[in-house]
Amino acid sequence: MKLLDLIIKRQSDRAYIDKMVDRDIIDRCLEAARLAPSASNSQPWTFVVIDDPALKNQVADKTVGPLKSFNKFVSQAPVIVAIVMEKPKLITEAGGRIKKKEYPLIDIGIAAEHFCLQAAEEGLGTCMLGWFNEKSVKKLINVPNNKNIPLLITLGYTPNGYRTRKKIRKEFNNAVRYNSY
Amino acid sequence: MKLLDLIIKRQSDRAYIDKMVDRDIIDRCLEAARLAPSASNSQPWTFVVIDDPALKNQVADKTVGPLKSFNKFVSQAPVIVAIVMEKPKLITEAGGRIKKKEYPLIDIGIAAEHFCLQAAEEGLGTCMLGWFNEKSVKKLINVPNNKNIPLLITLGYTPNGYRTRKKIRKEFNNAVRYNSY
Repeated sequence: MKLLDLIIKRQSDRAYIDKMVDRDIIDRCLEAARLAPSASNSQPWTFVVIDDPALKNQVADKTVGPLKSFNKFVSQAPVIVAIVMEKPKLITEAGGRIKKKEYPLIDIGIAAEHFCLQAAEEGLGTCMLGWFNEKSVKKLINVPNNKNIPLLITLGYTPNGYRTRKKIRKEFNNAVRYNSY
Repeated sequence: MKLLDLIIKRQSDRAYIDKMVDRDIIDRCLEAARLAPSASNSQPWTFVVIDDPALKNQVADKTVGPLKSFNKFVSQAPVIVAIVMEKPKLITEAGGRIKKKEYPLIDIGIAAEHFCLQAAEEGLGTCMLGWFNEKSVKKLINVPNNKNIPLLITLGYTPNGYRTRKKIRKEFNNAVRYNSY
């Protein structure tokens, strides 16, 4: 599949059927994420795959928001991946402090998207989640308190007939300028 | 090309030949970036393409670091793209403050990588740059002082015989855990 078609296919999928994802498929998605570029090749990440059904349901419970319906779909997904942010290399950390940029967040965005695009190529659905009770999730999967989990990703098969939605984005001419802002 | 092959092909390319990139090719890379997902679909970005040779050289000058050789290759690239960070939606900004995550940086990482992967599919080389004199670059391309440029991307054709390097990454088992950190 052409990259642009894959990009169009990848969307926030918020419905999953009750079917486990084989670990060799999960591992290909993780391989895509593992090969992601990062500032000074720091690779500031650890991917924790949660596919134990009981544990997965406990984690899903920690993503439900103040609005009752928010993130309710998460418990349908057979797999949740937590991306734990690791310390970057000293040079990246120092550079980030000087330039006031948290490079590891940029890096984690890239790795997460590699995962989701590979999942799309495998015929699987994903949804990145940035809003969840991080402290509780860390406890459930034994992440030390001094580390952070910027993102969770749901992974699973979407129901028959679940459609690829048209993407709503800024018009090209609103998003792009040539030679002057 | 399979996504994993594209991911392997994309690397930080630090040598370019003297050949302009057609705007319709640049625009396909921008289209890939424009379609990127973002927290609450905020799309917190504007892409400024710098392909005017004189301006591009001025911007390239602002990427050369304290070490004489650092980023010296940038001036070889016929095109530099600056990603300007825009304010996200109010709900994303409020959520980011509560959860202490700068979501727009994650989003910009994703959009930048879409650009670079599409460029790789087009047979072009790219390199993301996080270290440059941001204040000077903003001035050159008329970005208001209250906005930031987290990343620049070089774009161009690499020389004949320029190789795809083997990626040096953490071993799979060091990057991945199942069900417990």
